[in-house]
Amino acid sequence: MHLCKMQLLDGKKTAKAILNTVKIDVAQRAATGKKIPHLAAILVGTNGASQTYVNSKVKACNEIGFISTLIEYEEEVSEMKLLDKIQELNEDMSVDGILVQLPLPAHISERKVIEAIAASKDVDGFHPENIGRMIMGEAEAFIPATPYGIMLLLEHNNIPTKGKHAVVLGRSNIVGRPMSILLSNNTNPGNCTVTVCHSRTQNLNEICSQADIIVAAIGQPEFLKAEMVKEGAVVIDVGITRLEDASKKSGYRLVGDVDFEQVAPKCSFITPVPGGVGPMTIAALMKNTYKSCVNGD
Amino acid sequence: MHLCKMQLLDGKKTAKAILNTVKIDVAQRAATGKKIPHLAAILVGTNGASQTYVNSKVKACNEIGFISTLIEYEEEVSEMKLLDKIQELNEDMSVDGILVQLPLPAHISERKVIEAIAASKDVDGFHPENIGRMIMGEAEAFIPATPYGIMLLLEHNNIPTKGKHAVVLGRSNIVGRPMSILLSNNTNPGNCTVTVCHSRTQNLNEICSQADIIVAAIGQPEFLKAEMVKEGAVVIDVGITRLEDASKKSGYRLVGDVDFEQVAPKCSFITPVPGGVGPMTIAALMKNTYKSCVNGD
Repeated sequence: MHLCKMQLLDGKKTAKAILNTVKIDVAQRAATGKKIPHLAAILVGTNGASQTYVNSKVKACNEIGFISTLIEYEEEVSEMKLLDKIQELNEDMSVDGILVQLPLPAHISERKVIEAIAASKDVDGFHPENIGRMIMGEAEAFIPATPYGIMLLLEHNNIPTKGKHAVVLGRSNIVGRPMSILLSNNTNPGNCTVTVCHSRTQNLNEICSQADIIVAAIGQPEFLKAEMVKEGAVVIDVGITRLEDASKKSGYRLVGDVDFEQVAPKCSFITPVPGGVGPMTIAALMKNTYKSCVNGD
Repeated sequence: MHLCKMQLLDGKKTAKAILNTVKIDVAQRAATGKKIPHLAAILVGTNGASQTYVNSKVKACNEIGFISTLIEYEEEVSEMKLLDKIQELNEDMSVDGILVQLPLPAHISERKVIEAIAASKDVDGFHPENIGRMIMGEAEAFIPATPYGIMLLLEHNNIPTKGKHAVVLGRSNIVGRPMSILLSNNTNPGNCTVTVCHSRTQNLNEICSQADIIVAAIGQPEFLKAEMVKEGAVVIDVGITRLEDASKKSGYRLVGDVDFEQVAPKCSFITPVPGGVGPMTIAALMKNTYKSCVNGD
């Protein structure tokens, strides 16, 4: 048996390093009179998690010298009003990136809202045109922020991927699917043999046990157990669920899709929750916004 | 050991049945004074295989009562001239579907040409917007003709897919990738656990041996051998290569990516080449063109 020394894939630290580079680039743009990246974020309602996410994004903008605009609506805002605002931001030359924090209230079509955002300002990478361009391997596409963040995490930590077998748990449009595509692309990181698993997958344990890399993105707290993981595997935990916990000041604790305590000792690398994929998603969003700004030069 | 009775997945027969239904629908449209579907096909140069493919498509149009327009250019045609013609066809209200037979000569950008076609007339399903919409599971997307044809073949022959492990050999934008997405969708056929393999995949034999369904789309003649296939597997052969063969009147014979003679006895179902995926691709193209016409009602 090969005993491996587990290392944390520290998303917080990696994101900081990436954002620092962007910050320097922004300062240089400012010094030479070029346009400063500007992100507009729309938040609907008072969902606690959504507020936290949007605040982190605005904070990241401030830290690296981006301009940010936060537009907040009450839960009851009409779809029409939201679409009008997006149209206004699409036309506003000062805005480089637009994000609408999901989920939206049931009376608003998320699809309509996402498709209303100009593909050229869709820094979350959710617009069908960007998804399509990503698949075609077109460099100008905005890659969905979470999978892009994971690719950056693998890249910055020099995790070998070529020829490895990656198993992606989850087939969502914004994480599982794009993740599987990016990992199988002829790029570095990339060139993995990729298996996508989901709720209908049989013999899941057997498939996971073969994986060199596992990306868990199913939103089921502590789903991935030690017996599903091969010794020395790399485990990326995309899940983040708030579980009630009276012992915490906030009243909850954050849990990933991986049973960290059980699984971590078997891994060569594993992301923590929080502090793993979350900060990387924000770093990826900032990189997309920066790219959009440069595209407009 | 389970001895299975191999059955041919007859693409020719299945395509005929599907096209017959479309033909009846077209006749009904004609009888009620509705618009008849119109496919415009562009062929550049004199590549023998391309001519054969385009001719088959035009022939299929004629057989089911579609209008077809074949536009032929010499190898030397400029990119600009081609793009102008596409623009004209985009604006022509009488045209429902536009296809440009690939490959194009090296001096013309295939990407520019594909993206010039209006997404709403892109019946080959190659435009990034259609690829993106397919991934988002949007019903109005045109699905790339070859993977769509394979899905129709599975559907019409009642091949069970739910929970099965499908292995897709090849990661091309127009076959391998969309195939892997369609097979893993929450649909029927679909709901497979899907593994995408490619040139960098290690232990390919081991992975293929686990597959309930194999889709071979790598363009390497007779690549898939018997030892890579599990007893009772379903094998779909997308490859079609012309090999020189002096014993044939044409001077060549058509060979798939599967070593049919070796592999077939182990399969529950297998597609022949020719007469498997090829005719289904044409049936899918006709269905997309019909859909585009109905969308315009």
